[in-house]
Amino acid sequence: MSKQSDRPLILVTNDDGIEAGGLRFLVETLLPLGDIVVVAPDRPMSGMGHAVTINQTLRMEKRHFAVEGIREAWQTSGTPVDCVKLAIYEILGKKPDLLVSGINHGSNASINVIYSGTMSAAVEGAVEGIPSIGFSLLNHDPEADFSACGPSIRTLSKEVLERGLPEGICLNVNVPNMPLDAIQGMRICRQSAGYWEDAFDKRVSPGGSTYFWMTGEFKNPDQGQDTDEWALRNGFVSVVPTQFDLTAHHTIAALNQWNLS
Amino acid sequence: MSKQSDRPLILVTNDDGIEAGGLRFLVETLLPLGDIVVVAPDRPMSGMGHAVTINQTLRMEKRHFAVEGIREAWQTSGTPVDCVKLAIYEILGKKPDLLVSGINHGSNASINVIYSGTMSAAVEGAVEGIPSIGFSLLNHDPEADFSACGPSIRTLSKEVLERGLPEGICLNVNVPNMPLDAIQGMRICRQSAGYWEDAFDKRVSPGGSTYFWMTGEFKNPDQGQDTDEWALRNGFVSVVPTQFDLTAHHTIAALNQWNLS
Repeated sequence: MSKQSDRPLILVTNDDGIEAGGLRFLVETLLPLGDIVVVAPDRPMSGMGHAVTINQTLRMEKRHFAVEGIREAWQTSGTPVDCVKLAIYEILGKKPDLLVSGINHGSNASINVIYSGTMSAAVEGAVEGIPSIGFSLLNHDPEADFSACGPSIRTLSKEVLERGLPEGICLNVNVPNMPLDAIQGMRICRQSAGYWEDAFDKRVSPGGSTYFWMTGEFKNPDQGQDTDEWALRNGFVSVVPTQFDLTAHHTIAALNQWNLS
Repeated sequence: MSKQSDRPLILVTNDDGIEAGGLRFLVETLLPLGDIVVVAPDRPMSGMGHAVTINQTLRMEKRHFAVEGIREAWQTSGTPVDCVKLAIYEILGKKPDLLVSGINHGSNASINVIYSGTMSAAVEGAVEGIPSIGFSLLNHDPEADFSACGPSIRTLSKEVLERGLPEGICLNVNVPNMPLDAIQGMRICRQSAGYWEDAFDKRVSPGGSTYFWMTGEFKNPDQGQDTDEWALRNGFVSVVPTQFDLTAHHTIAALNQWNLS
């Protein structure tokens, strides 16, 4: 990086690929807050979870980006997590002041967080010690109107740039699919105990072989009013502090009573 | 499934693919404990994290497996998480009594848990409400001797079949790379706060294009004697209760003091 600046350095990535409308809106919104470098997958990578590319090679190239005024944009052949690692160690040569991932087309609330490439990029940022936020809009339409996300992106990005985040966490932010003036505000939430009741759509190819499409229905028996699902259903933007320490600390004492000799 | 039995139904999967030696050893060890159904990827899927296949089709086929006496074996074109979903909803038509994933070739202790396909299969089992365990041996050699894992697999699988597991958790079990008689026992641990200091090996193809291999070095500044890394370094098998609620509950009160209007 040749150019220097006193403005914050903001790394922007996503999992829907560098052409996605959500990424473009996110970059436009962040532009006044700092110097933007985009490093995103060269194609959609939804559902990639925390995948990394370790048995294949990675490629990347600098390219034009749809929003004027950013410092530079790169596309890579890798996953969202690969993009974060390549950005820090090969492109920036340092850690940015803020990492923002999204805007994902569709919900990453509740259990969706563990399947989400968008959130895995933010979690990877947290692992690297970078204040990181992932944004999603509850609308799968590639032509979705992201304008309801603007105030949340501006407010949270400014707060996080000023305050940082507690060690070991990033923010999982979901925005309900409604006009901006219908949104009730933001809520700090816990991840709802929802799950997918999976199903497979079984089909037969013209050649006679069987294949499957994964489908399913989201179920949320968790009625807690402190959950992300409750917030979203009631018109709030949900903000869940999300960690990568997966230890179920509360179960250790009980497991220590097992006979493991 | 036509055959019925009163024995526990055990689903076995992995991320190194259906031909991996670790899977074969795991199945041999579990054989006396129940009826075994293997559903595993048709090729190595290391580093796939919690990836799911949602924009592509899935295929699967019944096949011969290297260990005699199992009920059946299937290979799928999907990730480890896909294998768990296909097993429950298309192959078994019900939830098994136990899900065991592995034996992974290499460590899934500390931060490795979030990149691991082996552990994502176990986490997916927990999401589905199935008592689930992931096993790893700290040896990357495809010809590794897995015999040191035998007693841990038998003891933990039996205990989990008898007792179940606390709701919302699975077990992340790592076995140090040493002879069985050198192993000191098992320890219930927390996930150590280690991380990868990434690096990329940059190369140029014969055609002149640049590509990268991800490399890096594992760092563990966390000296806690209650960690998986401490246990493994001191000759113990580490057992970490692992959850899919990623909420950093301890940070919610602090975040509620932010000005988010």
